[in-house]
Amino acid sequence: MAASTLANWAVDLKYSNLSSSALRAAVRSFYNWTGCAIGGSNHEAVAITRDSLSPFFGKPTSSLYGQATKTDAQHAALINGIASHVHDYDDTHLDTIIHPTGPVASALLAYAESKGVVSGEDFILALTAGIEAECKIGLSVWPEHYDVGWHITSTTGSIGAAVAVGKLMGLNADAMQNAIGVAATQVTGLREMFGSHTKALHAGRAAQNGLLAALLAEKGFTSSEGSLDGKRGWVNVVSTQSKIDEVFGTLGKTWEIEKNAFKPFPCGIVIHPIIDGCIQLREELLADGKEPKDIKSVELQVNRLVLELTGKKKPKDGLEGKFSVYHGAAIGLVLGKASPAEYQDSVVQDQKIIEVRDRVRATVQGDIPPESCVITITMNDGTTLEKRISNAVGSTEKPMTDEQLIDKFLDQTSSVVGKEAAQKLSGSCLALERSADISASMTIR
Amino acid sequence: MAASTLANWAVDLKYSNLSSSALRAAVRSFYNWTGCAIGGSNHEAVAITRDSLSPFFGKPTSSLYGQATKTDAQHAALINGIASHVHDYDDTHLDTIIHPTGPVASALLAYAESKGVVSGEDFILALTAGIEAECKIGLSVWPEHYDVGWHITSTTGSIGAAVAVGKLMGLNADAMQNAIGVAATQVTGLREMFGSHTKALHAGRAAQNGLLAALLAEKGFTSSEGSLDGKRGWVNVVSTQSKIDEVFGTLGKTWEIEKNAFKPFPCGIVIHPIIDGCIQLREELLADGKEPKDIKSVELQVNRLVLELTGKKKPKDGLEGKFSVYHGAAIGLVLGKASPAEYQDSVVQDQKIIEVRDRVRATVQGDIPPESCVITITMNDGTTLEKRISNAVGSTEKPMTDEQLIDKFLDQTSSVVGKEAAQKLSGSCLALERSADISASMTIR
Repeated sequence: MAASTLANWAVDLKYSNLSSSALRAAVRSFYNWTGCAIGGSNHEAVAITRDSLSPFFGKPTSSLYGQATKTDAQHAALINGIASHVHDYDDTHLDTIIHPTGPVASALLAYAESKGVVSGEDFILALTAGIEAECKIGLSVWPEHYDVGWHITSTTGSIGAAVAVGKLMGLNADAMQNAIGVAATQVTGLREMFGSHTKALHAGRAAQNGLLAALLAEKGFTSSEGSLDGKRGWVNVVSTQSKIDEVFGTLGKTWEIEKNAFKPFPCGIVIHPIIDGCIQLREELLADGKEPKDIKSVELQVNRLVLELTGKKKPKDGLEGKFSVYHGAAIGLVLGKASPAEYQDSVVQDQKIIEVRDRVRATVQGDIPPESCVITITMNDGTTLEKRISNAVGSTEKPMTDEQLIDKFLDQTSSVVGKEAAQKLSGSCLALERSADISASMTIR
Repeated sequence: MAASTLANWAVDLKYSNLSSSALRAAVRSFYNWTGCAIGGSNHEAVAITRDSLSPFFGKPTSSLYGQATKTDAQHAALINGIASHVHDYDDTHLDTIIHPTGPVASALLAYAESKGVVSGEDFILALTAGIEAECKIGLSVWPEHYDVGWHITSTTGSIGAAVAVGKLMGLNADAMQNAIGVAATQVTGLREMFGSHTKALHAGRAAQNGLLAALLAEKGFTSSEGSLDGKRGWVNVVSTQSKIDEVFGTLGKTWEIEKNAFKPFPCGIVIHPIIDGCIQLREELLADGKEPKDIKSVELQVNRLVLELTGKKKPKDGLEGKFSVYHGAAIGLVLGKASPAEYQDSVVQDQKIIEVRDRVRATVQGDIPPESCVITITMNDGTTLEKRISNAVGSTEKPMTDEQLIDKFLDQTSSVVGKEAAQKLSGSCLALERSADISASMTIR
C-alpha cells in the first residue's frame, strides 16, 4: 500500500541518490526557511504563541529563532514553523502551491538540535526525503483537495515532517510507516483561516504533528497500513480524486524539491506576476515623466485563483493586505517595491496607497495561467500602458538568484539578530553540506 | 455565523441554566471518564506515549493518571485522553456515536489543575458547555461526516475541549470564537486507524488541540469568523450535508449530555446488543443443561454498521478482538462476560473461544437499527434458540445504574491505584458538585 511504498523509499534513500540540483535546492530551501523563521519571529502571532505556551516549555534543547533562548523540540518546531510562514514570504512548490520547507525544516531542525551531533549531509538527506514525501502526497490530490478548502501546506506538511524526522532517527520501514500514519491522521488546516493568525499556525502545528508522529513511532506506536490509501485513509477522506499510485511511481525519479521557488514578495504567490508587472510599469511611467498619482484606472486580467485567494478589495491592515491583489498592485505602482515594510498596517492604511488601490479592477480570464497576468493602465491624460507577465520573478522560469536570496536573508535577519550574526549565520547556512554538526552551525550566539 | 452563535451561548451559560438531569449526566460522565483514564493508563499505547514524550515534559502541574506523578497540562491532556479511550470502554453519545468526555475532560482537568483553585460547579459548567458544543457540531454533520471516514469523536472533540477550557478561563465571546476556530482547523482522526494505537491517540490529541486553541485565544490569537460554517469552514470541508443552523438552534434547549451512555463492555458500542444477547442466551443454555461447546452455528442479524466497524473474522490479538463481532459473540456465549479481561490477547487466541467464534455468521439486515439485533443459535442436537435485543444494557433506554457504574469504576481503578485510593477517589468524584477545589479532589495520593 502507499504508506509502505513511501516508507520503504524514504528508508532506502541515500545521500548519493540525490541529484546535484536536488541538493542545491535543498540548501537554498533551508537557507530561505531560516531567513523567514528569523524574520517572522517578532510577528505578533509568534509573540502570542510564545507567551501562551512558555509556562509549558520543557528542557531547552532547540533554537527558538529571534529569541536569545532555546526551548524543547516540540515547542521549537511549533513556534519556528509559525514564524517561517507568518509573513507569507516562504517558498512554494509551484505545482501544488505547497510551502514545503516550513513544516519539514521546523520539525527537523528542532529534533536535530535535541538529538546531539547531526551532520549537514544527514540533515539535507532527511530534509529532502520529507519535502519529497510532502509534495508527492500533495500532487496526488491536487487540485481537488485544495479547492475543497484544505490548506495543502499543512495537511501534507505533517507527513513530510514525520518522514524527515523519521529519516534522521533512522527508523526502519515498519516504524516509518507508522509515523506516516500518525502524521496523516492529524489533518490540520482549513483555508477559511486565511487572513488570520491561524494560517501561520498551520505550518507550525504540521511540524509538531509530524515530530510527534516520528517520536511515537520510534518507540513502537502503531497506525494503519492503509493510512494513506485505504478505504478511509488520507487520500480517500480529504479528496475524491487520488492519483497516489501514479505519483508515488515517480519517487526518486523526478525531484519535487528542484521545483521549489522562493518568494521575492511576502504575500500569496498568485499576486507575484501583478506586483512584478506593476513595479515594471512604474519604472516605465517615471521614465516617461509621468506619476503614479495620475493613474485613472488599472485593469488586471488574472487567473481565477487570484481573486479566490487574494480578492480583498478593502484590506484593513497588513495581514489583510497580503490577501488583496489590489494592495499588491498599488504598492507596486506607487512605491515600486513589496517587502515586509510595504505590508505594515500604516502602508495599507495610507491614503496615497488607498487612492490608487481603489482604481484597480481585476477580472478573471479563463485562459490565463496562475503565473501570468495582463495589466492595463489608463492615465488621466487618456494614454494607456499594457504589461503582459508570463512568469514573475521568483518563478521556476525566472528563479531568484543566490545573490537575491542572500539579500533577502540579510534583510530579514539583520534587524532581528544584528548584522554580524546575520552574516555569520548566512555563511554557515550556505555551507550546510559541509557542516559537521548542525546544532553548532545553526545556533545564533 | 455559527462560531459566534456557539461562542456567545457558551460564554453566557450559567450553572443555574443546567437542567438537573444534565447535571447528573455531567457528574456520571466525568466519573466514568476518570475510571477509564485510570483503567487505561497501563495500556501499551499509553506507556509508549509517556516514554516517547517524557523528555519534553514541562512543569508538573497536572495529574498523569496511573502514574504517581504529574506533568504539564498539555501532556496530561494528551496522555490521559489516550488512556481514557484506549480500551473502547468510555461513553457514547448515541445519536452521533461520539465518545464525548474523553477529549473534553482530558483537556479540562489538565488545565484546571494547572490553573489553581477551581470549584466543582465551575468545572461541571465548563465540562457541560464543552460536551454540548462537541455533540451539537457532531449532529450537524452526522452521519455523512462519519461515513466518509472521519473519527467523529476527535474531529468534534477538539472544538468541545476548546469551549470547555475557554469557559473555565472565562474567555469573552470574541476570544471564545477564536478558540473555536483554532480548534476547528485541527481536524484529527481518520477511521482507517481503527484497530491500531492511533485510534486512542485521536481522543488525546483532540484534547490537546482544544487546550492549545484556548491558550492561544486567551492571549489574542485570531482565527476566522467563518471557522465553522464559512465557505471553507469546518462543516463545509469535512462534510457536504451540514445542518448546523438547525442544530445550533437547540443549544441549551435539548441537552446532548443527557443522552450520553456508558459502556458495560470495552468495545465498539455496535457490538453491545450482540454481547448482551449472547450472555443471556448462555444463561438460558446452562439453565437448560446444555453447554456452549455444543453450539453448531450462530446466526447474527445486524445493522450494517456492525460489519463495517467490527467485521474482523479472525482477530489476532486483544485489540483486533474489539473490532470483531465474532469474538464478542463468542466470549458472551462461552464466558458469559465481556470486561477488559476478556479482551486480553490470551483470550482472543484461546482455542475454546476460537472454536465457537468460527461458527458465528453475521448478515446485515437493512431494517435493524444499530442498537438492536437478532441472534439464532442452532445446537448439535438440532434445537434452536432465538434472542431479539431491542436495546442493550448501557443504552439510553436501559442505562447503567449508578451501582453498575461504581462497580465498573472500582474494577478499572483498584488494580492500578489500589483499592483504598480507588474507593476514596470514587467518593470525591461522585461528590464533584460540592468540591471546593477540583485539584485537591482529583489528585491521587
